[in-house]
Amino acid sequence: MSNLTSWVPVASDSDFSIYNLPYGIFSAHGNGPRVGVAIGDQIVDLAALADTGFFDLWTTQRDVFHQSTLNAFIGLGKAITSAIRLALQEMLCDADTTLKDHAGLLVAQADANMHMPVSVGDYTDFYSSIEHATNVGMMFRDPANALLPNWRHIPVGYHGRASSIAVSGTPFHRPKGQVMPKDATAPVFQPSGRLDFELEMAFVVGKDTQIGDTLTTANAEDYIFGLALFNDWSARDIQKWEYVPLGPFLGKNFFSSVSPWIVPLEAFDDFRVPGPAQEPAVLPYLQYEGDRNIDIKLDVIITPEGGEENVVSRSNFQYMYWNMAQQLTHHTINGCNIQIGDMMASGTISGKDESSYGSMLEIAWAGSKPVTLSDGSTRVFIKDHDTVTMRGYAEKDGKRVGFGEVSNKVLPAR
Amino acid sequence: MSNLTSWVPVASDSDFSIYNLPYGIFSAHGNGPRVGVAIGDQIVDLAALADTGFFDLWTTQRDVFHQSTLNAFIGLGKAITSAIRLALQEMLCDADTTLKDHAGLLVAQADANMHMPVSVGDYTDFYSSIEHATNVGMMFRDPANALLPNWRHIPVGYHGRASSIAVSGTPFHRPKGQVMPKDATAPVFQPSGRLDFELEMAFVVGKDTQIGDTLTTANAEDYIFGLALFNDWSARDIQKWEYVPLGPFLGKNFFSSVSPWIVPLEAFDDFRVPGPAQEPAVLPYLQYEGDRNIDIKLDVIITPEGGEENVVSRSNFQYMYWNMAQQLTHHTINGCNIQIGDMMASGTISGKDESSYGSMLEIAWAGSKPVTLSDGSTRVFIKDHDTVTMRGYAEKDGKRVGFGEVSNKVLPAR
Repeated sequence: MSNLTSWVPVASDSDFSIYNLPYGIFSAHGNGPRVGVAIGDQIVDLAALADTGFFDLWTTQRDVFHQSTLNAFIGLGKAITSAIRLALQEMLCDADTTLKDHAGLLVAQADANMHMPVSVGDYTDFYSSIEHATNVGMMFRDPANALLPNWRHIPVGYHGRASSIAVSGTPFHRPKGQVMPKDATAPVFQPSGRLDFELEMAFVVGKDTQIGDTLTTANAEDYIFGLALFNDWSARDIQKWEYVPLGPFLGKNFFSSVSPWIVPLEAFDDFRVPGPAQEPAVLPYLQYEGDRNIDIKLDVIITPEGGEENVVSRSNFQYMYWNMAQQLTHHTINGCNIQIGDMMASGTISGKDESSYGSMLEIAWAGSKPVTLSDGSTRVFIKDHDTVTMRGYAEKDGKRVGFGEVSNKVLPAR
Repeated sequence: MSNLTSWVPVASDSDFSIYNLPYGIFSAHGNGPRVGVAIGDQIVDLAALADTGFFDLWTTQRDVFHQSTLNAFIGLGKAITSAIRLALQEMLCDADTTLKDHAGLLVAQADANMHMPVSVGDYTDFYSSIEHATNVGMMFRDPANALLPNWRHIPVGYHGRASSIAVSGTPFHRPKGQVMPKDATAPVFQPSGRLDFELEMAFVVGKDTQIGDTLTTANAEDYIFGLALFNDWSARDIQKWEYVPLGPFLGKNFFSSVSPWIVPLEAFDDFRVPGPAQEPAVLPYLQYEGDRNIDIKLDVIITPEGGEENVVSRSNFQYMYWNMAQQLTHHTINGCNIQIGDMMASGTISGKDESSYGSMLEIAWAGSKPVTLSDGSTRVFIKDHDTVTMRGYAEKDGKRVGFGEVSNKVLPAR
């Protein structure tokens, strides 16, 4: 990528540079939900652009830009969506384009409502940060054998709930559920006292497979459309009582949240980095070539009601032990099919030290190390009326590609 | 229900009596997939019937009968679908109806292809048979403490894969995956050597809730449209190596199968029975009134290639410790939303003795008690080219309401 400059003003610290061009679903000015692309503090209205015939060279299906999810657009296939991306980039850099004056081409982000970007068929959550798995194992199980025997052989994952994934900005109520108090002999039913965030990245599947098909680490990324920030909200007390033997259920499925903008995987081509060495060597089907990790800086912020932002974690997507190609290859190696719009999250992304832990469970070490916020209040988990915000971006050589944020407020239990 | 007789001939041992009227999606005679209702060995073509205006009194949305899934039909709501059911029953008992001569009203089941009946948003699998949970606990964990501490307090469930649920008749390939051989120090990648069935019943959600909504045991059944037979195919060796701590994943998600006919819940009104006593008492939100179990006889049959049927299990849906109202109430008690078409399976349905166990894992007790088939061959798990068939029906006072079957053949690993 050479240096590109758009005629749309883009602040130097904007996540939405000309190198990004993420896709989302927005509505504004009385128009229904439609496909848009973020640039600077604006949105390019792709539905309006499609109606000019701009995309006819690549697809005559103008209606895919008028949908309330990205699924149909993604379904055009990467050959087309990548060509469209380049055409948009070119148009946005062409100071002489007549489209500059096209009414309705640009919508201010401040004037738009953002919607859930994709219809999620199935949602899978992995567990691919070795630091997170080790921390949780130390607290929930055996400190001496924190990492389970399968962890270095398998990109461990489990199925989550697709229906309760909502877009950034959606508030939700603290969940109630069964918890087993310490030293009690029977569970009680109450609002969760250990509501937590999990800092994750998610990828959106971009291409279907059929039952029986398998992917390889060499072609798996062809089936990934793009990435988003993901908060895998968790109720630790509910989770702890329920999760043996079949895994997390009500401790997770009450709510998850995702950033509104899906950044195409190819926007991160310049931000690839090597992953950690995997020891012992993984089975051949999980071996891979090339740099499959991505350097994406990630922050988690807690904002008390009416208060100011408190950064409680600074992590990085590059810490992942298992990469996305390995995750998706593993997911399909038994013939499990995947579908456009499926969402697969990384698992909590923790770094080596506590400033980079991706959950309150780890940051406050199961409640034993309270975090003091700027207003003097403390947190071991998330309180009612707190807002949790995650932000993330890659930056190199003056080029920045980011996600904006996923930010959600916790309301009291109903 | 008084005694009803249809002018469509119905054999005395047919699952599809006038008291049943299950819904499915079929195609025949060059017509595309559409909604049908089974009676005897025929299918009532509801799309053709809708085109006569027959349903206009209840809905003017004739297109819901022309869809390739039942979701839109179910979305009409129980007030309408139940009225439609009664109208169909009346019409099918009215020997003088002019519709008898309507070309295309009836299609022979032998001439039809059955399709996946619903588009499944999310799939949840419960674990609600105390005999099954105890048997598995004895084999996989600690015989002395087979039932985990949470089991009698929680209708334990986990999220499964929706995309790989297929309709009866679909063959599939034996999955490959990581397994840890006994006494080995590293896993190997190979075709599963422990492919198993799980005899289950599934219910289909009939009404949406929103994130934050909760159901009660008193209203949960209003959100259940109907029931189907369900085979939760499992690869025990893959499952065993992967499932701690986050639950089953590749050991289950390669394939599940469902009967093509969804029997409306109300068709089982006459077959309700009390459930087992629940000790200790469950938390108030899980307490319930009335008979919530259903007496449905269930058979599992193994048919070797070119061979004859071998019944390997005779179980009953009434054995369930946790009933569907409890399952669905629990699922939503944290605010998790449900959607029309969601499928929720019971977990393996095992009875007290080995003739009623619902999986080969239990029937052959982890390989230690081979089953001899009529051709002299033995099974501890399912072999390539075997067909596994499940059948189920309720019967009382000469009235029979059944599912037909879910039957699938296992092909060798690719």
